[in-house]
Amino acid sequence: MAGSQVDADLWISEYITPWDIYVHGITKVLAYKKTAYQEMYIVETGAYGKALVLDGKWQSCTGDEFIYHESLVHPAMISHPNPRRVLVLGGGEGATVREILRWKTVEQVMMVDIDGEVVDACRQHLPEMHQNAFDDPRTQLVIGDALEILDKMEQQWDIVISDLSDPIEEGPSYKLFTQEFFEKVQRVLQPDGFLVLQAGPVGTFAVKTHARLVNTLSTVFPHIHSYCCFTPTYGEPWGFAIASAQAIDTQPNPATVDQHLQDKTTGGLRLIDGVALLGLLQTPAYIRRAIASETQVYTLNEPPKFFGKGALSQSSSQS
Amino acid sequence: MAGSQVDADLWISEYITPWDIYVHGITKVLAYKKTAYQEMYIVETGAYGKALVLDGKWQSCTGDEFIYHESLVHPAMISHPNPRRVLVLGGGEGATVREILRWKTVEQVMMVDIDGEVVDACRQHLPEMHQNAFDDPRTQLVIGDALEILDKMEQQWDIVISDLSDPIEEGPSYKLFTQEFFEKVQRVLQPDGFLVLQAGPVGTFAVKTHARLVNTLSTVFPHIHSYCCFTPTYGEPWGFAIASAQAIDTQPNPATVDQHLQDKTTGGLRLIDGVALLGLLQTPAYIRRAIASETQVYTLNEPPKFFGKGALSQSSSQS
Amino acid sequence: MAGSQVDADLWISEYITPWDIYVHGITKVLAYKKTAYQEMYIVETGAYGKALVLDGKWQSCTGDEFIYHESLVHPAMISHPNPRRVLVLGGGEGATVREILRWKTVEQVMMVDIDGEVVDACRQHLPEMHQNAFDDPRTQLVIGDALEILDKMEQQWDIVISDLSDPIEEGPSYKLFTQEFFEKVQRVLQPDGFLVLQAGPVGTFAVKTHARLVNTLSTVFPHIHSYCCFTPTYGEPWGFAIASAQAIDTQPNPATVDQHLQDKTTGGLRLIDGVALLGLLQTPAYIRRAIASETQVYTLNEPPKFFGKGALSQSSSQS
Amino acid sequence: MAGSQVDADLWISEYITPWDIYVHGITKVLAYKKTAYQEMYIVETGAYGKALVLDGKWQSCTGDEFIYHESLVHPAMISHPNPRRVLVLGGGEGATVREILRWKTVEQVMMVDIDGEVVDACRQHLPEMHQNAFDDPRTQLVIGDALEILDKMEQQWDIVISDLSDPIEEGPSYKLFTQEFFEKVQRVLQPDGFLVLQAGPVGTFAVKTHARLVNTLSTVFPHIHSYCCFTPTYGEPWGFAIASAQAIDTQPNPATVDQHLQDKTTGGLRLIDGVALLGLLQTPAYIRRAIASETQVYTLNEPPKFFGKGALSQSSSQS
Repeated sequence: MAGSQVDADLWISEYITPWDIYVHGITKVLAYKKTAYQEMYIVETGAYGKALVLDGKWQSCTGDEFIYHESLVHPAMISHPNPRRVLVLGGGEGATVREILRWKTVEQVMMVDIDGEVVDACRQHLPEMHQNAFDDPRTQLVIGDALEILDKMEQQWDIVISDLSDPIEEGPSYKLFTQEFFEKVQRVLQPDGFLVLQAGPVGTFAVKTHARLVNTLSTVFPHIHSYCCFTPTYGEPWGFAIASAQAIDTQPNPATVDQHLQDKTTGGLRLIDGVALLGLLQTPAYIRRAIASETQVYTLNEPPKFFGKGALSQSSSQS
Repeated sequence: MAGSQVDADLWISEYITPWDIYVHGITKVLAYKKTAYQEMYIVETGAYGKALVLDGKWQSCTGDEFIYHESLVHPAMISHPNPRRVLVLGGGEGATVREILRWKTVEQVMMVDIDGEVVDACRQHLPEMHQNAFDDPRTQLVIGDALEILDKMEQQWDIVISDLSDPIEEGPSYKLFTQEFFEKVQRVLQPDGFLVLQAGPVGTFAVKTHARLVNTLSTVFPHIHSYCCFTPTYGEPWGFAIASAQAIDTQPNPATVDQHLQDKTTGGLRLIDGVALLGLLQTPAYIRRAIASETQVYTLNEPPKFFGKGALSQSSSQS
Repeated sequence: MAGSQVDADLWISEYITPWDIYVHGITKVLAYKKTAYQEMYIVETGAYGKALVLDGKWQSCTGDEFIYHESLVHPAMISHPNPRRVLVLGGGEGATVREILRWKTVEQVMMVDIDGEVVDACRQHLPEMHQNAFDDPRTQLVIGDALEILDKMEQQWDIVISDLSDPIEEGPSYKLFTQEFFEKVQRVLQPDGFLVLQAGPVGTFAVKTHARLVNTLSTVFPHIHSYCCFTPTYGEPWGFAIASAQAIDTQPNPATVDQHLQDKTTGGLRLIDGVALLGLLQTPAYIRRAIASETQVYTLNEPPKFFGKGALSQSSSQS
Repeated sequence: MAGSQVDADLWISEYITPWDIYVHGITKVLAYKKTAYQEMYIVETGAYGKALVLDGKWQSCTGDEFIYHESLVHPAMISHPNPRRVLVLGGGEGATVREILRWKTVEQVMMVDIDGEVVDACRQHLPEMHQNAFDDPRTQLVIGDALEILDKMEQQWDIVISDLSDPIEEGPSYKLFTQEFFEKVQRVLQPDGFLVLQAGPVGTFAVKTHARLVNTLSTVFPHIHSYCCFTPTYGEPWGFAIASAQAIDTQPNPATVDQHLQDKTTGGLRLIDGVALLGLLQTPAYIRRAIASETQVYTLNEPPKFFGKGALSQSSSQS
C-alpha cells in the first residue's frame, strides 16, 4: 500500500577519497552476515542490480560487473597461446571463474578464497554472477589462506589471477600485494605463464599507489603491462597489471582477436572484442608517466595501505 | 579481522523537512520484510540501540523510545480516575501496551494493528520493546483494519490511544486523522474516557499540521489538551493531544502524582514522575498560539497530508 | 531558467552522535570566512531560514533560534528580582543580547566574544537575529578572551550568561566549562546573582556530559537548577543550568509570571510565558537521575570533551 | 584554533542515477552567484582541487578536468589535416579553449557561452583552468544564445566543439542536442570539418541516451565516431561523438600521432599521446552494440531528457 513510491530507504556510502563519497541506494537487503573474516551484505540496488558489499566496500554488482571481470580475465587469456590451467586468488562472487570457463582451452580452474561463508552466500543469492561456474567439473574451489596454500603448492599454472580485495590498512590482503608475495606466485607460474591482478584505482588522486604496485611487480617479473577500465559503480577508473617473462602484444590486430575469441571461447562477452581489447591495452599518458617515475616498492616491511575506509570513522568517546 | 573498526556501512536517511535529513548509521540488519502493507526493517544502530523502520520512516528505537511511549500513555492514564479498559490503535512494537500494563487498574488492553507481519517481527526481534506485553493475559491482539473494527465494535473504553504512523500522503493512515474518524472513536469511548493520540511533529516548520489536527479534534470533543516531548531520534519535538468530555488537570501537584504512580502502577518509568508530568503538560507559547489561530479542519474530503517522505524521491525516466 | 526546481545543492552535515548525522540543505551561501579563530558560514536553508555555522557546527538559525535564546535568557532574568547588569560570554549572533534588552530593568549588557569577525558578519547578514541589539546604548561589545577579561574584571553582575560553543575536543572553549572557570565567574557575580549556561545536549546518548557539568557547577555554587528545551535543528534536546547562592522558584505561578513579564519587559516573547516557563523548569526524570548519580567533576586537568565533530574525519594517508 | 582537523563541512551531492549519489566534500566556497541563467558555485574540494558547479551539477574540477577536456578537443584536432578556425559552444571554464590554443595551426577560436557571469567568475577564480586562454589574441568570446548566433553566422569552421551542459529536463540546452540543431551546425561547418560533442554518460545505466544521440547525429552526418573517457569525478565513463563528412582514422599509428603532436602543438598534454589516442578511439563493445541497435532520434518534438537532477527533489507541501 504505502511505500510504492519509495525508491530507497537504506544507503551504502563508500569513500572514494577521504572527501568524496559514492552513495548507493539499496532497495532490498538479500543477505547479511558477519562471517569469520568480514561483514557481508548482498543487496538489491535501484540502478545497478544486485551487489556484494564486504566490510562496507562495494565489491561488484550485476549491473556493471562484466566490465571489471572481462577486463581482469581476458587480456591475459587472449595473450596466452593455450591457457589450460588457471589459478584464481579471491574472486568470491564466482564471476571471475565464469569468465575463465568461457575458454574452451581451459581444463582446470582452482579458486582459492579465504571466506567460505561469502562464497556460499554468493552461490545462493547471486546466480547472475557465477552462472553455475562453481558446478562446472573443471572448477575446484578451495577455502583457505592463499598465502599458506601457495607455499605448499606443487602445481604450476598458465595463468594466475589475483582478484583480491584492496590492500587497505584494516584488511587482510595487504600481504598479497608485496614483492615477497609476487615471488611466491612466480614459483607456481609456468615459465610462459601470466600473472594478472586487479591493481587498484588509477584516478588522479589514487594513481600513485597503482604506480608503486606496478613498480613492485617489475622487481620480480621482466615485463609488466598496466591497463585500466571504468566500472561505473567503482566511482573511478580501475587499474590492472599483467606480469610475465615475455612481453605481451599490446597492439593486437582487432580482426585477429575476434577470430581467436570465436575459435577458442564459447562467446558471451559484453565488453571485449578485438576493437575493445585494443583500446583496453592502451593506457592514458598520465598513468604511464606515474609508473615510469615511481621508485618505491611494496614489501612486507613497507606494505601497501590503500585508502579504503568504506565507512565513516568517528571517535565516539565522551568524557 | 577486517571490519572491526568499521562503525556503519549502511545508513537510513529520513527527511525531517524537505531540506533537512536525519541519517542514522546502521550497524546490523536484524530483519527485513516486504509485508502486505509496508516495507519493514529492524536494525541495530550505533548510538540508539535497535530500531523499527517502516517504509523508510523511523518508528522508534530502544535507545529513546521510552520518551515517546511514556509521553503517549501516562498523561491520559494518570488523568483518568480508574483506567480499566484500554484500546490501542496501531502500536506494532508493543511498547505502548507495555506502558499500559504497568497500571494495576488495567483489566483489558486491546491492540488493533493492521500489519501482523510487523507485529510478529517485533515480538521476535525487539523483546526490549514489548517486554512480553503480548503474553500478558490482559492483552488482546487484533490484526485488522482499525476503521472496520471500530465500526463493528460494541464495547466502550476508558482510554483509546492512537499510536498510528503519520498521515503522510502515501500512507494508509490519513483517514484515521479526520473529523469523521474521531466521531467513530467517540462512540466507543466511555463518557468519562480519554482519547489520546500522537499528533505529529511540533517544530516551527511543522507546527501548523499539529494545530489543524488539534482544531479537528475540538470539533468533536469539548476539551483538548495539546502537549509535546522531544525524542532525540525524531529530530524534532513531537506533539500529542488528549481529547475528552471533561477537562484534565493540566497543573497537577507533583507529589500527589508521585504517590498516585506508586499506588497504581508497578513502577519502572524513566521519563515521567510528578515533576516531569507537570513539565510535559505545559506547552510552549508558539504551539498554543498556532492552535488558537487555526481555523481549518481535517475531513475525509480534506484529509491531512503530513510531510513524510522517508526516502529520496526521484523521477528515473530517461528518454 | 534552469535550477528553479532545484531545492538544495549544498549540504551541511553535522554529527549528532558518531553514528547519527543531521544534514541541512543549503539554498544559498551568504557569507564565508576563515577568521583568526574558526571557519564561518552564514547560509540560507530551505526550511529554517538563515543559519550561522562555525567549524561545521550549527550554531543557530532564524527559523527556531527563539527557542534556544529565550530558554537561555529568561528563566534567570525572571528569577532575579531586579536584573540591571548582565554579562554575556560568547553570543556572537546578538540574539542573546536581544533577549536581555527586552527587560526594562536592564541598564548595562556587556557581551564578550573572542571572534570579532564573526560578530561583524552576523551584524551584516543576520539582522533578524540581533535586531539592532548591538546599537542599543545599553550594549557594550568587547572582543577578547573571556578568561583574560574575567581575570581583570572589577565589576560585578546580576546575571552572567554563558552562551559559549560546546567544549568539544578540538575547540577553544573547553576551559570555560571547568570548576576553575566557574570559580572565576563566581567572583564577578553579585551575591544574589545568577549564572546561567548552555550546558550541552541532554538526549539519552549525551546526558552524561550534561550531568557531569551540573555536578561540576555544584562544587562551586550552593544551588543548581538544570532544565532543557527542544530546538528542532539541534537534533536533540538541549540542557541549561542556573547556578546561584539562593535556590530559584522552580514552580512559579503562571499568572504571576505573565504579569511580571508584562510589567518588566517590552514583550515579543514567542516561546515563554507563564505556562511555558513552568513547563521549561520541570526536567524529565531520566535527566534528573543522571545528575543525581553523577560523581565526576570537570577541571582543567580533566576538562570536558563533548562529542562534537561537525564533519567527517578521515585519515587521508596513502602509501 | 579549532577546525584544523575538520576536513569538510559542506557537501555537494550529485545524482549519478536516481539511486546513486556522488557526494563531494567542499573545503571552501570561492564564489557563489545566482546568474541570470543558473546558480553557480566555485569551490575548493579536498581531493580534486577547485571545481565549478552549475545548478548543482558538477561541471569540472582542476584535479581531473584534463581528462575530459583533452578527450573532447584533441581527437578531432588530430584528425583534421589543418585546423585553423574552431568554434566552441559552451565551455565556460575556458579549458576547452586552452586545449585548442595548444595547436599552432589555430588562427581563430570563437567561444559562444550564454552566461557571461559564469565566464567572468571562472576567469577570476579558475586561472588553473583557462590559463589565460581568454587573453590570447586568437580567442573571441561571444556571450549569447548559441541557437541565435548560429542562425546568423556567415563564417564556416574547421572544427565545431559542443561543450554544452547535459540536456537535462530542467536545463536550457536540450534544444542543442536535436536533429534540427545538428543541421544548423552542419551549415557552418567546412565540408571537411568536424563536429565533436560531449555526448553524455556511457555507463551501463545511461548508455541508451548516448546511443540515441549518436543515432540522431547519423541522420545528419555520414560518419559518426563514438568514443569515451573516464573522468573520476563524473562517477561514470563519459561519451563523445565526432561527426563528419569523411570518416576519421580510428586506428592511427601511435608514433605518427606523437610526431604530429610534436610538430603542430606547443605540448603540455597529460592524457593524450599516440598510445592513449589509439586507446581512446576504441570503444567498448557494449557501447557500440547499444548504438548499433538504436533506432530513435532526438528532435525538437521529442527532445532528449537526460537524467540530471543535481539535487534532491522533494515536494514540500503540507496541508
